[in-house]
Amino acid sequence: MTFNINNVLLIFNRTQIIRNSFNLERGDTIKLPAGTTAYLVNQDDNEDLRVADLVIPVNRPGKFQSFNPAGSQNQDSYFRGFSKNILEASFNARYEDIEKVLLEEQEHEPRQRRGHKGSQQSQEADAIVKVSREQIEELRRHAKSSSKRRASSSESEPFNLRNRNPIYSNNFGKFFETTPEKNQQLNDLDISVSSVEINEGALLLPHYNSRAVVVLIVNEGKGNLELVGLNSEQQEQEEDDEQQEHEEEQDQNKRVHRYSARLSRGDVIVIPAGHPIAVKASSDLNLLGFGINAENNQRNFLAGEEDNVISQIERPVKELSFPGSAQEVDRLIKSQKQSHFANARPEEESQRRRGPLSSILASMIM
Amino acid sequence: MTFNINNVLLIFNRTQIIRNSFNLERGDTIKLPAGTTAYLVNQDDNEDLRVADLVIPVNRPGKFQSFNPAGSQNQDSYFRGFSKNILEASFNARYEDIEKVLLEEQEHEPRQRRGHKGSQQSQEADAIVKVSREQIEELRRHAKSSSKRRASSSESEPFNLRNRNPIYSNNFGKFFETTPEKNQQLNDLDISVSSVEINEGALLLPHYNSRAVVVLIVNEGKGNLELVGLNSEQQEQEEDDEQQEHEEEQDQNKRVHRYSARLSRGDVIVIPAGHPIAVKASSDLNLLGFGINAENNQRNFLAGEEDNVISQIERPVKELSFPGSAQEVDRLIKSQKQSHFANARPEEESQRRRGPLSSILASMIM
Amino acid sequence: MTFNINNVLLIFNRTQIIRNSFNLERGDTIKLPAGTTAYLVNQDDNEDLRVADLVIPVNRPGKFQSFNPAGSQNQDSYFRGFSKNILEASFNARYEDIEKVLLEEQEHEPRQRRGHKGSQQSQEADAIVKVSREQIEELRRHAKSSSKRRASSSESEPFNLRNRNPIYSNNFGKFFETTPEKNQQLNDLDISVSSVEINEGALLLPHYNSRAVVVLIVNEGKGNLELVGLNSEQQEQEEDDEQQEHEEEQDQNKRVHRYSARLSRGDVIVIPAGHPIAVKASSDLNLLGFGINAENNQRNFLAGEEDNVISQIERPVKELSFPGSAQEVDRLIKSQKQSHFANARPEEESQRRRGPLSSILASMIM
Repeated sequence: MTFNINNVLLIFNRTQIIRNSFNLERGDTIKLPAGTTAYLVNQDDNEDLRVADLVIPVNRPGKFQSFNPAGSQNQDSYFRGFSKNILEASFNARYEDIEKVLLEEQEHEPRQRRGHKGSQQSQEADAIVKVSREQIEELRRHAKSSSKRRASSSESEPFNLRNRNPIYSNNFGKFFETTPEKNQQLNDLDISVSSVEINEGALLLPHYNSRAVVVLIVNEGKGNLELVGLNSEQQEQEEDDEQQEHEEEQDQNKRVHRYSARLSRGDVIVIPAGHPIAVKASSDLNLLGFGINAENNQRNFLAGEEDNVISQIERPVKELSFPGSAQEVDRLIKSQKQSHFANARPEEESQRRRGPLSSILASMIM
Repeated sequence: MTFNINNVLLIFNRTQIIRNSFNLERGDTIKLPAGTTAYLVNQDDNEDLRVADLVIPVNRPGKFQSFNPAGSQNQDSYFRGFSKNILEASFNARYEDIEKVLLEEQEHEPRQRRGHKGSQQSQEADAIVKVSREQIEELRRHAKSSSKRRASSSESEPFNLRNRNPIYSNNFGKFFETTPEKNQQLNDLDISVSSVEINEGALLLPHYNSRAVVVLIVNEGKGNLELVGLNSEQQEQEEDDEQQEHEEEQDQNKRVHRYSARLSRGDVIVIPAGHPIAVKASSDLNLLGFGINAENNQRNFLAGEEDNVISQIERPVKELSFPGSAQEVDRLIKSQKQSHFANARPEEESQRRRGPLSSILASMIM
Repeated sequence: MTFNINNVLLIFNRTQIIRNSFNLERGDTIKLPAGTTAYLVNQDDNEDLRVADLVIPVNRPGKFQSFNPAGSQNQDSYFRGFSKNILEASFNARYEDIEKVLLEEQEHEPRQRRGHKGSQQSQEADAIVKVSREQIEELRRHAKSSSKRRASSSESEPFNLRNRNPIYSNNFGKFFETTPEKNQQLNDLDISVSSVEINEGALLLPHYNSRAVVVLIVNEGKGNLELVGLNSEQQEQEEDDEQQEHEEEQDQNKRVHRYSARLSRGDVIVIPAGHPIAVKASSDLNLLGFGINAENNQRNFLAGEEDNVISQIERPVKELSFPGSAQEVDRLIKSQKQSHFANARPEEESQRRRGPLSSILASMIM
């Protein structure tokens, strides 16, 4: 049990839990305001509870701290920080009583590491403890269940990412997103949350976010990500050491740079605003995303039948900008019949479909 | 007389003053927008005027500057910064006339220090000058008095911290606070202002601010403050010099650290958000506070009968978190009959009260 | 053609252009949200197009980047950043076709510099290309003209700085300004835009901005600028090297410092908030300004008949602050009959006007 001295946003996955008085399930998202005292209980006997947590520090950027009312092997109770004098006056009680009830027994030997505990009968608890079936039942009774929650509309209640329709959806994937514009809690933080499902063998088409920096977490599955940056970004670090002899030349001649990453469960990737990315799933892939600076963000796709910035460029400008003629550019764009998600291995598909009928059928089905 | 190139928030104490056209008194708070040309006059013959001033720089964080229309021994008039040429065109007058009327005579010897002035008949004025009774009367006539102000509701007018009821009050102390939610001027700045009175021998109970960083100024009295931090904060500075050999070990084993301070008049203390503090008064103590980042801030008390985060924890969680049973924790919390402010020396009290009757009486009186 | 990964604000000058679907003319101002794909076409056969562009980075302050869908000699297409694999799946097409239509031919020799292009038949386009009369006509047809725009009131449309009345205007100059308070697009960015015309031989009177940092661009003409700063600002840099021996002395004794600049076309000057400036035109001078942090900014003039902070100071404070008496100060201020803009060479004027009649006449005309 800790209180976080920061704003915390949680996405809960894969099992049921209780927090304060909420029974939570997969896709539930909750904002814990800075300074909230909170705990999490995994109610499920079989499944692990996994939570993605975006921490927004209130004191100093990049510096997060949490304080605990109750001490554990990992961290003292904050009550330990006050003098006996102050504690006795605060509780109007003798220090021995306060220590017995609130504080673990102060040790005089060096602190023990986790795992030694059972054998030594230390008073210190672990930060994560075993909860009995009865205790879980008692906590569950006081918590609002998901169905009750949906009736009320209180601002501080959790919302489920998957209750809304996906913003993009086809046979190759689904994109769930809640934005600051749609949700007051997210609005206060200027943050969006998303859950992206890319089916095995599918591709999230190349796109960029206009304003938001996106933190992606691989929740399940495997895949590949390609991110396009400018060469000058890479050189920046190198230039710290080297002389900047060729600066002028480099400025005039900006080459793009491909950043590739193999993705697997637990990976975290930060996507800066404006940088084009594409993600390919080698097994069913589930990504969780936090969009920072998300207000008025627009996701601009660079390929796909609909919702594609290239197709919106005016004819004479296409003609002048690209090596191909405007007709050739339009024909190329139209050869992709999917939007947002597509087949990542079209060459294999097309081999199967070869023959005049199959290709006609293919365009009818999709 | 200066204009501040910053937003300035002033709390006036202990005497009457005039600013622009306001007669101010103890507890009056006023926001001077950046770029305001302002002066302060102490109207009182006997009492010193004391002002607590929170400066919010507009150009660069942490960098405050003020410019003066009139020169003084401490600082040139900004008119001195313009060339003769520009000044003559600006005022449509000869430079000699402008210099005679607006600028002190330019010196050719090294500048004199304060204190030498009288004897040398320098043209330079001090930054603080003697005002005649007649001049004070003339300024006072044009200023709105407190009673007239209260009728109007203009946004730019001063407000008095003590006109509202205290948010916490009992025999041991009073806590006055105006928050961004209650006042438009403070809302623009995201700042709260407070005045805390802790009676001699009393304690402001342990609590933390959920979001706000609080700058405390000791206005009057003496006392002690305890602030709880994490050991890792202290180590940070030490680690700059030392090798970070034991980092992993320290991370797993966070101890709390007590920062203690004896308080006396003029002391300034910065309380980071989320850090528990308690304040004990050894003589009647008056603290002024500026809360920075104050919107939606919550003050969470850790002891006291009402308004106490520990008592709100659910029974099974108390049981699991603390060494004592849930009943013991509840009994301990209930032994303090006060909220927010309490007796700092309960042991002395209880000695006086010893005997069955006095303890019953005590619980009835309070 | 680029998309900017930043918010961009453009002021168009001196000729007609098309952007997306807008025909723009002198004084038109447009906000391009971060991530917009945009192009500019100069429709005029004779006149150059000049644009002042304020870039607000979304990822890191001070770090601007733009990405191009189409490659040029200066920068690769962002499609180049994706692997063949991803491109083929994204467009559902063979790589050779994509390369032929969207990407310039990859070179195997070192890249050529601009200017060599024509002779070598490179596939690479310049970032700025020649547009045929027919292409301009086609683009112009789809664009809304200025007159049509004025009817509608869509938020994302350009507005013209010169459609409104100038905020200051007399025989010596004109000051056009649109502030966040008056325009929603500017409000989102907290930016003001201004266009200042100072006639040959005229002076923009000394003034300071209360909150805004102003970036001034000299669009046309020549002149001089004087900016008043505090000596301590200058010393800061020097003190990095030197010992700070005399710090106490310097703090008590702040002298103002004059920063002078001769202005000519293309110069950019940053004016920090609160710092007094004056600008003199030696030929007709046109300045464009971006005010950053512009909400609630006030321009405070230090000379001139109306709108002058010095004349607003109360009588006894004038008496106490300045070497001259309050009457002398008032008389000095009143000798300037102009406000905001004035004659920069009054001595020459007064020689011409010498004689009782001319001075009476002068005060009647102006």
